[in-house]
Amino acid sequence: MDCYSAVELIQAKRDGGTLSAAAIAWLIRAYTDGQVADEQMSAMAMAIFFRGLDDAELAAWTAAMIDTGERMSYPGLKRPTVDKHSTGGVGDKITLPLAPLVAACGAAVPQLSGRALGHTGGTLDKLESIKGWRASLTGAEMLAQLNDVGAVVCAAGDRLAPADKKLYALRDVTGTVASIPLIASSIMSKKIAEGADNLVLDVKFGSGAFMRSLDEARELARRMVALGQAAGVRTVALLTDMNTPLGRTVGNALEVREALAVLAGGGPTDVVELTLALAHEMVQLAGLDTDPAQILASGQAMDVWRRMIHAQGGDPDAPLAVARHCDELTSTASGIVTAMDAMAIGVASWKLGAGRTRKEDTVQAGAGVELLTRPGDRVAVGQPLLRLHTDTPEAFATARETLQTAVTISEQAPAARPLVADRIC
Amino acid sequence: MDCYSAVELIQAKRDGGTLSAAAIAWLIRAYTDGQVADEQMSAMAMAIFFRGLDDAELAAWTAAMIDTGERMSYPGLKRPTVDKHSTGGVGDKITLPLAPLVAACGAAVPQLSGRALGHTGGTLDKLESIKGWRASLTGAEMLAQLNDVGAVVCAAGDRLAPADKKLYALRDVTGTVASIPLIASSIMSKKIAEGADNLVLDVKFGSGAFMRSLDEARELARRMVALGQAAGVRTVALLTDMNTPLGRTVGNALEVREALAVLAGGGPTDVVELTLALAHEMVQLAGLDTDPAQILASGQAMDVWRRMIHAQGGDPDAPLAVARHCDELTSTASGIVTAMDAMAIGVASWKLGAGRTRKEDTVQAGAGVELLTRPGDRVAVGQPLLRLHTDTPEAFATARETLQTAVTISEQAPAARPLVADRIC
Repeated sequence: MDCYSAVELIQAKRDGGTLSAAAIAWLIRAYTDGQVADEQMSAMAMAIFFRGLDDAELAAWTAAMIDTGERMSYPGLKRPTVDKHSTGGVGDKITLPLAPLVAACGAAVPQLSGRALGHTGGTLDKLESIKGWRASLTGAEMLAQLNDVGAVVCAAGDRLAPADKKLYALRDVTGTVASIPLIASSIMSKKIAEGADNLVLDVKFGSGAFMRSLDEARELARRMVALGQAAGVRTVALLTDMNTPLGRTVGNALEVREALAVLAGGGPTDVVELTLALAHEMVQLAGLDTDPAQILASGQAMDVWRRMIHAQGGDPDAPLAVARHCDELTSTASGIVTAMDAMAIGVASWKLGAGRTRKEDTVQAGAGVELLTRPGDRVAVGQPLLRLHTDTPEAFATARETLQTAVTISEQAPAARPLVADRIC
Repeated sequence: MDCYSAVELIQAKRDGGTLSAAAIAWLIRAYTDGQVADEQMSAMAMAIFFRGLDDAELAAWTAAMIDTGERMSYPGLKRPTVDKHSTGGVGDKITLPLAPLVAACGAAVPQLSGRALGHTGGTLDKLESIKGWRASLTGAEMLAQLNDVGAVVCAAGDRLAPADKKLYALRDVTGTVASIPLIASSIMSKKIAEGADNLVLDVKFGSGAFMRSLDEARELARRMVALGQAAGVRTVALLTDMNTPLGRTVGNALEVREALAVLAGGGPTDVVELTLALAHEMVQLAGLDTDPAQILASGQAMDVWRRMIHAQGGDPDAPLAVARHCDELTSTASGIVTAMDAMAIGVASWKLGAGRTRKEDTVQAGAGVELLTRPGDRVAVGQPLLRLHTDTPEAFATARETLQTAVTISEQAPAARPLVADRIC
């Protein structure tokens, strides 16, 4: 491998130049090995924040990150593989009904997930509120479960794109997270390394999402879809609204309960709508000729759910945790609910104990926020709007403070906003 | 002192915000103490590269760097103090005749200087080619010499603006040197800490300078003058041409010889012109009513030079080093010399042994380049243009390669360019 000067590469990017694929491969490898120092990589990340990466640079950057680890494969698997990734939202429990539903449609869904950090929840934390369920599987266990059950939700190992892990930790402390190409390569390096043949991205925009505007989300989606295609993974993205939390619950056991309602044929309409929209894309990409709505109605997705939980040590019939304390936020006005701010509700749920501040923190299974109304509902003075759940009632005061302006009530009904705003392929 | 979040300050600057003086004071202090990590400061430096620092931010940044160390003073000194700083050029031996000249005019000149690094020479390296001369003085020795002789050229201690030393080393490896506010604060934090009441800046532009264009040099000068004034130091800047080396010599002993010629009333016209222009500004700022040209002609500056060298252990009568090997570059064309590239000649001199690549390297006293012609001279084919001096003749080949296009010869005389292009006060 050629050798480069980190300073010269930083200066080239700083001055608007283009980095060659060989230079990027060297940089990522040398950074992972510790030859390029953290202070050099953070300066490079800040230069990229300002100058961007073009499509060829981004593809090289992502490929270089993948090359620092292993790329999974599923030898002997008889089903087509399809994966889903959400950029993170509030009340986003979609993976829970979606993975078993798409498996019930005939695909294999190897869903490697993360934990809550900050205001967004983590799929693994939600599933861990089920008694006995474990997130860690070996490669052999994962392959066997994909063959037998069709769906796996488990923790991503440390061996996928280790450069990304190191780089993300660096970006987190150096103000260089908010760069679309760096976000795209971080997500896609892991997703491509996970080895599914097909991938559906749920790219969120709005107050509760990392991308506040639809335009930013579209740019991120466009770049991620291009990266997937370039790496031979058939990729489609949906741009979905995250101004309001998804469904009526935010929190770990609270969201599992809502997912079970969807699998049983009920549940909030927005959760059902997004689950089916994503399932439709996944089934299409996987080349299957099944209708997810029919499969969901038939109860087959619930069957797969139970087998999936069971296969990972969980008891699907065990009662779910309930928080020891509840409190309600009531309306101080009468009128129509026009907004329920996803960010404020996500932060409140986190502060009530559903999320964590540091990686080492534990989460409360029962904590969270229940939405007792939804935008468009008419409410009266004194009517309960939100129900807060926690084991640590001293958190109520700060959660209430966070929620002070979370619900907007006015005389006029809000304009209807589509949940799925666009599709990028 | 308030406490801030480094990440939030980086993000604020990244997004075009303004940092408060208190936040900047915290950041510089915390960085010097190791609480803010190198990778955070390099990201901040890159954000400043793109977003700049406004005048208030820059003044706070510079003051904070000064506050990490000590600020010198000269109690009991009977002369007004005046200092000079050059942003660095090729063949820039001006300090050597200038400091004794201005002292002979009645001022005290406490000139803290540096060593060669890269293509520019260092005043201390030049003086160390004089037998016995030493660069390190205690504060008491410095004060006594300022009282007795009026001029001191010595090494800056580690106690002036230690934050700058740490930050400069970081910028050097992270591609964040070329930021005008960071350059301005680096220079001015040390110059203000040196405690002179008056300061003249020689800000160079052109191929052999850090600022390639006059506009960049003007912006740097403007910001440094504002910083000096804000800190109570009367400051004036001259913008001077560094497309051609100053004088006819580049190298350590070679330049001392040329400085002696100037002090003796001769020497190249450009060196004399710039010495007198800077001396005039310094004498004016110091409020003295003397004419530097007269003082130079009278031989008094040479007297001060001899006393200054002697006071620092040097023998002003000892013969200067001569390189063991010489080589000449001859003209391959006939015509008029229109350019002699300062950068190429500076790099060649460095490679011949006059400069250093790493701080630990030693320099050759005799090595360097002599200019046998000057722009405007008519030359014939085969006429010697440059004479190369070194103790290590294996360096001739690489020096010759560096100098391949250093001298431009054409049929038309070059347009006359003023040496002093502008004055900022």
